[in-house]
Amino acid sequence: MRTRPLKVALLGCGVVGSEVARIMTTHADDLTARIGAPVELAGVAVRRPDRVREGIDPALITTDATALVKRGDIDVVVEVIGGIEPARSLITTAFEHGASVVSANKALLAQDGAALHAAAGEHGKDLYYEAAVAGAIPLIRPLRESLAGDKINRVMGIVNGTTNFILDKMDSTGAGYQEALDEATALGYAEADPTADVEGFDAAAKAAILAGIAFHTRVRLDDVYREGMTEVTAADFASAKEMGCTIKLLAICERAADGASVTARVHPAMIPLSHPLASVRGAYNAVFVESDAAGQLMFYGPGAGGAPTASAVLGDLVAVCRNRIGGATGPGESAYAALPVSPMGDVVTRYHISLDVADKPGVLAQVATVFAEHGVSIDTVRQQGKDGEASLVVVTHRASDAALTGTVEALRKLDTVRGVASIMRVEGE
Amino acid sequence: MRTRPLKVALLGCGVVGSEVARIMTTHADDLTARIGAPVELAGVAVRRPDRVREGIDPALITTDATALVKRGDIDVVVEVIGGIEPARSLITTAFEHGASVVSANKALLAQDGAALHAAAGEHGKDLYYEAAVAGAIPLIRPLRESLAGDKINRVMGIVNGTTNFILDKMDSTGAGYQEALDEATALGYAEADPTADVEGFDAAAKAAILAGIAFHTRVRLDDVYREGMTEVTAADFASAKEMGCTIKLLAICERAADGASVTARVHPAMIPLSHPLASVRGAYNAVFVESDAAGQLMFYGPGAGGAPTASAVLGDLVAVCRNRIGGATGPGESAYAALPVSPMGDVVTRYHISLDVADKPGVLAQVATVFAEHGVSIDTVRQQGKDGEASLVVVTHRASDAALTGTVEALRKLDTVRGVASIMRVEGE
Repeated sequence: MRTRPLKVALLGCGVVGSEVARIMTTHADDLTARIGAPVELAGVAVRRPDRVREGIDPALITTDATALVKRGDIDVVVEVIGGIEPARSLITTAFEHGASVVSANKALLAQDGAALHAAAGEHGKDLYYEAAVAGAIPLIRPLRESLAGDKINRVMGIVNGTTNFILDKMDSTGAGYQEALDEATALGYAEADPTADVEGFDAAAKAAILAGIAFHTRVRLDDVYREGMTEVTAADFASAKEMGCTIKLLAICERAADGASVTARVHPAMIPLSHPLASVRGAYNAVFVESDAAGQLMFYGPGAGGAPTASAVLGDLVAVCRNRIGGATGPGESAYAALPVSPMGDVVTRYHISLDVADKPGVLAQVATVFAEHGVSIDTVRQQGKDGEASLVVVTHRASDAALTGTVEALRKLDTVRGVASIMRVEGE
Repeated sequence: MRTRPLKVALLGCGVVGSEVARIMTTHADDLTARIGAPVELAGVAVRRPDRVREGIDPALITTDATALVKRGDIDVVVEVIGGIEPARSLITTAFEHGASVVSANKALLAQDGAALHAAAGEHGKDLYYEAAVAGAIPLIRPLRESLAGDKINRVMGIVNGTTNFILDKMDSTGAGYQEALDEATALGYAEADPTADVEGFDAAAKAAILAGIAFHTRVRLDDVYREGMTEVTAADFASAKEMGCTIKLLAICERAADGASVTARVHPAMIPLSHPLASVRGAYNAVFVESDAAGQLMFYGPGAGGAPTASAVLGDLVAVCRNRIGGATGPGESAYAALPVSPMGDVVTRYHISLDVADKPGVLAQVATVFAEHGVSIDTVRQQGKDGEASLVVVTHRASDAALTGTVEALRKLDTVRGVASIMRVEGE
C-alpha cells in the first residue's frame, strides 16, 4: 500500500460538507483500506471562517477557495458549494492544477456539464457527481456503468424530496397545497423560498443530468419542459383516488418510440397506486428505469440531507482516489448518440381533464367532437351534475401534448364549457 | 479510438449466453462507442454443438472450452455455464492466459470467490460478477463502489424469484405451498427439481456474496444459515395477515450491534406490509440496504431471466473492456475487515410462535414462565379456544436465536403444549 496520503480540498462546509469532513475523520481507517492509501483533508474553503466547525482543524479553514484549488498538491477537490459561480470557475481551475473533482452540484452539472467534462478530459482528470441526483441513491453509476451494455428507454423518477413530502401530505391528509407547504417548511423539508423545489427547477436539473447519461446525448436544462406543482389541489387528489391513482411530481426522460429522439420533462402526474413509485412516501426519492434487456428497475432512498448526500460524495471520492492511484480515469461524458431533444409537443401520454360545463343535453357530444377533431381518443368520460352546472371528467388514450393543447384551446372556446378545472397527465400505466 | 477489437469468449450459450451473444450483435455500435473499441465474439463454447443457434456464426462454436480460454488472444471470458466445475478451472485458466472474466456464477463465487479473486489479482486481471446476484439489478457495483465511503449495517433482500413467485401466489390466493409450486413450475418460474430455490441454497449463495462485499469480510457459503420455505403454510399467511404482515424468503446479512461480527442467513420471515420489500410481487427481486450515512436504500428489478441477466453481464463486459483499454483493473476483493461470522444462535430478532395447547386454566402462565426463564420477553399473546384445545400465538420482543431455540425446546416438554405449529421470524420493523 502506498503511504503518501491523497490530499482532499473541501469547498463548502455546510450541511453536506461538514458531514463529508466528519466521515473522513471517523471512517479514516476504512477509507484507507478501501482506497489503498490514506486520504487527508488538506484544506476547507468556507465563506464564514469564524463559525465553529467541530472536528475540523481550524488551520485548514480558508476563505480563499481559489488559492486552495491552485495549490498544486491537491489530489481531489470536493465541491459542495452549489450554484453556478464561483463553483464553475473553481472546478475548472482545479482541473488545470492537477486535481480531480467530486461535485454534488446539480444546477451546475445540468447547465455546464459538457464544458466541465471537456475540461476534465483535457487534463486527464475525473469528474464524478453521484450526489447531484437523488442524494444517497446510487443512480449515476448504475446508469452509466451497470447498464452500459443495455439500451435505456425511460427514466421516470421522484427526484425532489420537498415536493414529494408536500404531495404525500396532501394525499394522506386531504390538506391543500399551502397547508402542506407550511408543514414542510416548519419541519425543515422546505426552504424559506421554496421556488426551486415547488416550481420544478431542482427536478429539471436532475432530469437533464439523468437524460444525458441514459441516452448518451447532451440534454441541457433548457431542453427540459418544466411545470411546478403549486396548482395541484385537494380536488385533483380526489380525482386521482377515483382513478386508483395518486399524484407525484415526476421527472421523465424518454426515448421516442422510433428511437430517433428523446424528451425530458418535469410535471405533476397521476400514477396508479400499483406502480412502485406511488408508494414512495415523505421526502424519499425513487427512480424507475426501463431498459431493453434489464426490464424495469427501481432505485429508492433518501434524496437529500447531509449524511445521505455525503455518502454519495464519499463513494465518488473513493472511486476517484482509486483511479488516481491506478493512474486511470473513470468513464467521462458519453454523448456519442447525440440524439435530438424533442419539444414537449411531441411527448405522447394520457391525460385526465376536468371541465366545468353547462348541465344541458348535447354538451358531451360537443366536447367529444372537439377531442375527435384533434385526434385525441377518449378512454372514459364521467359526468356529474350539480345545480344547473355539471362537471365532465375525461380520460384520454395516448395522444401528443400538441394535440392535447389544441384540444384544450378549442374546448375553452365552447360556450357550454365554463372552464377547464384541471389537466393532469397520467403516467406509469 | 482504438480499432483492434476486443475479443470475447463466451462459455455457455443457454438462456443467458444466447442473449449476451444477441445483444453483442444488435447493439454492436453502441458497445463500440461506450467501450471505445469494437468487441468481437471470438468463440462460443457449448456442450451441444449441433443445436441451431440463431445469429451466431457456426464457425465460432466449439465444444473445447479449455482450448478456447487458452487461445491467448482472448481479452474477456464471459462464463455463463454455472455450477462449480468446469467453470472454476476455466476461469482460472482464463486468468493464466491473459483474459479478464465476467461471470454470472453465484454458486462458484459463493464457494470459491476468495481463490478466484486471488487468481485474478495475481495475473492483474478483472473478475466481475454483477449478474451473480439479483439478475439485472445493479447491486454489486453500488455496494462495492457507490457505498465505498459508507458503513453498511444490513443488507436484506428477496434474491430468489422462484420462491417469491410462490409466496406471492400463496399470499394473494390463499393457495398452499404445493399448489403454488405447481403453478410456478407450469409457468416456467420453477425448475423440474426446485430444491436449489425452495430450500434456499440459491439465496444462500447470494447472501454469502452480498455479505462479503457489504462487510469487507470473507463470508463462505457454509457460514450462511439456511432454512427453506417448503414448510410455510396457508395458516402462516393467515397469521401474518393478522399481524399486518406478509411472508417473504429473505436473505439477511447483518453487522452485530457492537460492530465486531457479522451474520448471514436465509429463511422465511414475516415483514410488515408497510415495508418496501412487502410489495415486491411475482418473480421480482429487491434488496434493502441500511448504512450509516446513506440510510435506507432499495434496489428493485427482475432477478432472473435471459435478457435481464445478460444486461448485467454486458454492463460488466463494458467495464472490463474499458479497464483493459485503460490498462487498469477495477476494484478487486475487499476483505480487509475480516470480521468473524457469528453462528445463527447469535442472531437477534423477533419471533411469531403458534402453539397448540390444552384449553384449561394456567396454560398461559406456564408458557409465559418458560419464555421468561429463557430471557425471551413477550410482546403480545393471542389465545383462541376450539373444542377443548386452544391455540396460543406469541410474538416476542427481540431475542437471540439461541434463547428462542431453548425456549421452544422447553415448551415442547410441557404437558399442556400439544405441539408447536409454527415458528416464524419477524423482520423489517
